[in-house]
Amino acid sequence: MTAIVVSIGDELVLGQTVDTNSAWLSRRLAEIGVDVIEHATVADDQLGIERALRDVAARCDVALVSGGLGPTADDLTRQALASLMQVPLELNEAWFGEMHAFFARLGRTMVESNRIQAMIPRGAEMIWNTCGTAAGMAVRIGRCRMFVMPGVPKEMKAMFESRVRGELGDAAGGSVILSRTLHTFGLGESNVGERLGDLMDRRRNPSVGTTVSAGVVSIRINARYAGIDEARRQIEATDELCRQRLGALVYGIDEQTLPQVVLGLLKERSAAAGRGLTVATAESCTGGLIAKYLTDVPGSSAFFRQGWVVYSNDTKTQLVGVPAAMLREHGAVSEPVVRCMATNAMLMSEADFALAVSGIAGPDGGTADKPVGTVWIALAGDEPAGVTARRFVFVGDREMIRDRAAKMALTMLRYRLLGAEMPF
Amino acid sequence: MTAIVVSIGDELVLGQTVDTNSAWLSRRLAEIGVDVIEHATVADDQLGIERALRDVAARCDVALVSGGLGPTADDLTRQALASLMQVPLELNEAWFGEMHAFFARLGRTMVESNRIQAMIPRGAEMIWNTCGTAAGMAVRIGRCRMFVMPGVPKEMKAMFESRVRGELGDAAGGSVILSRTLHTFGLGESNVGERLGDLMDRRRNPSVGTTVSAGVVSIRINARYAGIDEARRQIEATDELCRQRLGALVYGIDEQTLPQVVLGLLKERSAAAGRGLTVATAESCTGGLIAKYLTDVPGSSAFFRQGWVVYSNDTKTQLVGVPAAMLREHGAVSEPVVRCMATNAMLMSEADFALAVSGIAGPDGGTADKPVGTVWIALAGDEPAGVTARRFVFVGDREMIRDRAAKMALTMLRYRLLGAEMPF
Repeated sequence: MTAIVVSIGDELVLGQTVDTNSAWLSRRLAEIGVDVIEHATVADDQLGIERALRDVAARCDVALVSGGLGPTADDLTRQALASLMQVPLELNEAWFGEMHAFFARLGRTMVESNRIQAMIPRGAEMIWNTCGTAAGMAVRIGRCRMFVMPGVPKEMKAMFESRVRGELGDAAGGSVILSRTLHTFGLGESNVGERLGDLMDRRRNPSVGTTVSAGVVSIRINARYAGIDEARRQIEATDELCRQRLGALVYGIDEQTLPQVVLGLLKERSAAAGRGLTVATAESCTGGLIAKYLTDVPGSSAFFRQGWVVYSNDTKTQLVGVPAAMLREHGAVSEPVVRCMATNAMLMSEADFALAVSGIAGPDGGTADKPVGTVWIALAGDEPAGVTARRFVFVGDREMIRDRAAKMALTMLRYRLLGAEMPF
Repeated sequence: MTAIVVSIGDELVLGQTVDTNSAWLSRRLAEIGVDVIEHATVADDQLGIERALRDVAARCDVALVSGGLGPTADDLTRQALASLMQVPLELNEAWFGEMHAFFARLGRTMVESNRIQAMIPRGAEMIWNTCGTAAGMAVRIGRCRMFVMPGVPKEMKAMFESRVRGELGDAAGGSVILSRTLHTFGLGESNVGERLGDLMDRRRNPSVGTTVSAGVVSIRINARYAGIDEARRQIEATDELCRQRLGALVYGIDEQTLPQVVLGLLKERSAAAGRGLTVATAESCTGGLIAKYLTDVPGSSAFFRQGWVVYSNDTKTQLVGVPAAMLREHGAVSEPVVRCMATNAMLMSEADFALAVSGIAGPDGGTADKPVGTVWIALAGDEPAGVTARRFVFVGDREMIRDRAAKMALTMLRYRLLGAEMPF
C-alpha cells in the first residue's frame, strides 16, 4: 500500500514554517506498513491544491492531507476538494453543533467565519476533531483513499490516532517497516559505504543506507516484513552483519549519543575497578564544548567533575602549568603542549583520564604548516597507554571544526576504554 | 518566475529526518522575488526521482533540487537526471582533480566510490562545492532551469549562495519579498506579541509575526514591494516601530547571535576604556556551555581567556575557592555560592567580568524548594553594580534548562554592558 503525504500552506512554501507534519505522519505510516513514496507541499491556492490532489490521487493508494482548514480566507483545502469531487460544500450539522458547544466551553461566542469549518464536500465522511474547530474529511477519489486533516500538529495527530491509523492499519494487512540506526564517527561516508559493500544493495531487505549529520555517519537499517517479530529478527541479523564489517566504529544506535556511550563505558570500567573513574578536560579551541558534551548526560557528575577552558597562552601556563618556554618554542597548537595540558589536567584533578585540545578553529590564524582545522588532541590515562596525542585536520567552518574536534576527543577516550585501536 | 523545491532522500519520506532544506531555500527565493509554488519530497528511487523531476520541470521556471548526490549506492539523483536528459553520465575532470586535492588536504586517500561524485550528465554545467565532495549541476529541461545540489545543508547553502542566487536574482526582476528578523531573549512569545500589538495585523505590509526557537523569540518582518529600495525603506520603518515597543529586548537581527552581540559590546566598551576588557566563567550546571557560546565567535580570544567547569562541590572549593562550609550551609545552588564563584573567578582571572552559574538541570536532583530548572546566575563586574545575582526557574528538559541558563547569563552581561535594567 503506497501513500503520499500532502501539506498545504503559504507559510510552508514560503519557508517561514518548517513542515514537521509530513515527517511525523511518515513515521506513523511506516509503523503500520504503509509505504510513503512522496511528500508534496502546496500553497494556499485553490486551483493549485485541486491540481495537486488530483495528481496525488492518481498515484497512490492513500493520501494524507493536512492544512488549509482554518476559518480565514486563505484556507481553501475544502473548496479545492469539493471542486475536485465536483460536488458542493454542505454544512455538517453534527459538527456545527459540536463547534457551538466548543466555543461555549471557552466562554466565547462563535463568529460567523467559523461556520466554514463545519462545511464538507457532499458525500465526504466527517472526521471528528478532538482538539480544535475544523472538521476533518475522509473521501475516496478513484482508487485513492484520502484523509484531510487540519495543519495544526496537535489536531492532525489526534485525528490520525483516533480515526486514520485504525483504518489504514487494517487495510495495510500487517506488513511493517522497522528501523534501526547505527552511529559511527571518524571515517567518511564513502569509506563506511565501502566497508558495508553489498549490504547496501538497493534491493536488499532489510535495506542498508548511510546518512551524515554533524560529522556522524549513520547506517540506517529498514526492515519490511509481514510480521513485527520477523522484522525484529531481520533487523538484528543485519545489525550484526554491519558490525562485522565496521567493528568498533559503531558507537551506538538510535537515540544513543557519543557522550552517553563514553560515560557508559566509564561506568562499566568503574564497576570493574570497584571505584568511580573520572575524566577531566583542558580545552583551548573547543572552548568548553567537550565539557558541555559530557555534561549533556544526566548523572555525568559522577564521572566528570571539572574542566578548564584555557583559551589564551598565559592561561595555559597559569591554570594547567604549560611552561611558557614550551609555548614559545612549539606554539600552542603542538604535540608537547597538548600532552602537557592533558597530563597536568589529570594530575591536578586527580582524575583517571584527561582530554586536552589545542587547535586552529579559524577563520583566521592558519599558516602553511598549521592550516585552519589543525587540531592536536591528547588523552592522558592509565598505563600502559599513558599519554597519547594525535594531530587531525578537520574540514569546515569554525563551528564544524570545533564540533569534530570535541567528538574526536571523546572518540579517542572511547577507544581507550574499549582497549581497541582507532581505525583511522 | 515560479519555482518548485525538490528534496530527495529515503530518510525524508520515511520521516526519519525533517526536511529543513526546503524551508531555507524557499526563504532565499522569496527574498529575490521568486514565487515558490510547491515543495516535493521523493524517495531514493531512480524511477521515482526521474518521474518527479520530469513533472516538476513541466510546471515551473526554476527547480531547486537537493539530495541524493552522496557516494553510496542509494544516491541516485544524478543517474535519474541523466536518464531524464537521455544523456550519459561523464566524469568532470576539473572536479575530480579538486576532490583528489580535498582528500590530500585531509591526509586521506580517496576511495573508488567517491568517483561517482564527480560524474555529471553530459551537457550539464558543474557547480563547485566549497565544503564537500559532491559536484552540483545546473541544467535546462524544456522551459525549466534546474539546479541540483547536495542534501547536506551546509553544502547546499554554500552552493546556493555562491552560484544560484546570483543567476536567479538577475532573472526574477519582479516584485520582491524582503525579510528581517529581530531577536529577543527573556520574555515569552505571548508577552512579546502583546507589546507588538497592532503591528501584527495580518493585512499589514510589511507583515510582523513571531516565532520561537531555542528560547529566542524572534520577530519576522516580511515586506512585499515592487522595488527593492522601497522594500528596504519599509523594512527599516517597521523595524523602528518594533524597537519602539520592545526597547533593549531586541538584541540583534538576522544571523546575529547573542554571544556575538555581547562580545561586540565588550569590544565597544574596550575601545572607550582604551584597554581590552575580558570576561571569565565559572560554570556548574551549564558545564562549559557559556564558554562554548563565547568561543563560538571568531576572535573571542581577545575577550574570553579562561573558564572553569566546576561540576562537583569539591571542585568548586578547589578551583574557585568556594568555602566548604558555605556549600554545606546553603547548598551548591544558592545565592552565596554563585556570588562567591563569580567574584573569585573575576579576581583569580583578573578579568573585568565573570559569570557564574549553579543550578539543577535535571532530570533528577530537584526538591520542593529547588525544583528542577532552578538556576542561580551571578555576574561580577565593575562598580557601582558590582556583583549581582538572580534566581531563575527555567522550564523544559535538561538540554533546554542548560541552554536557557547560558543564554540568560549572557543576557545579564549584555544588560550590564548596556547600562540598562532587565525588563523581566
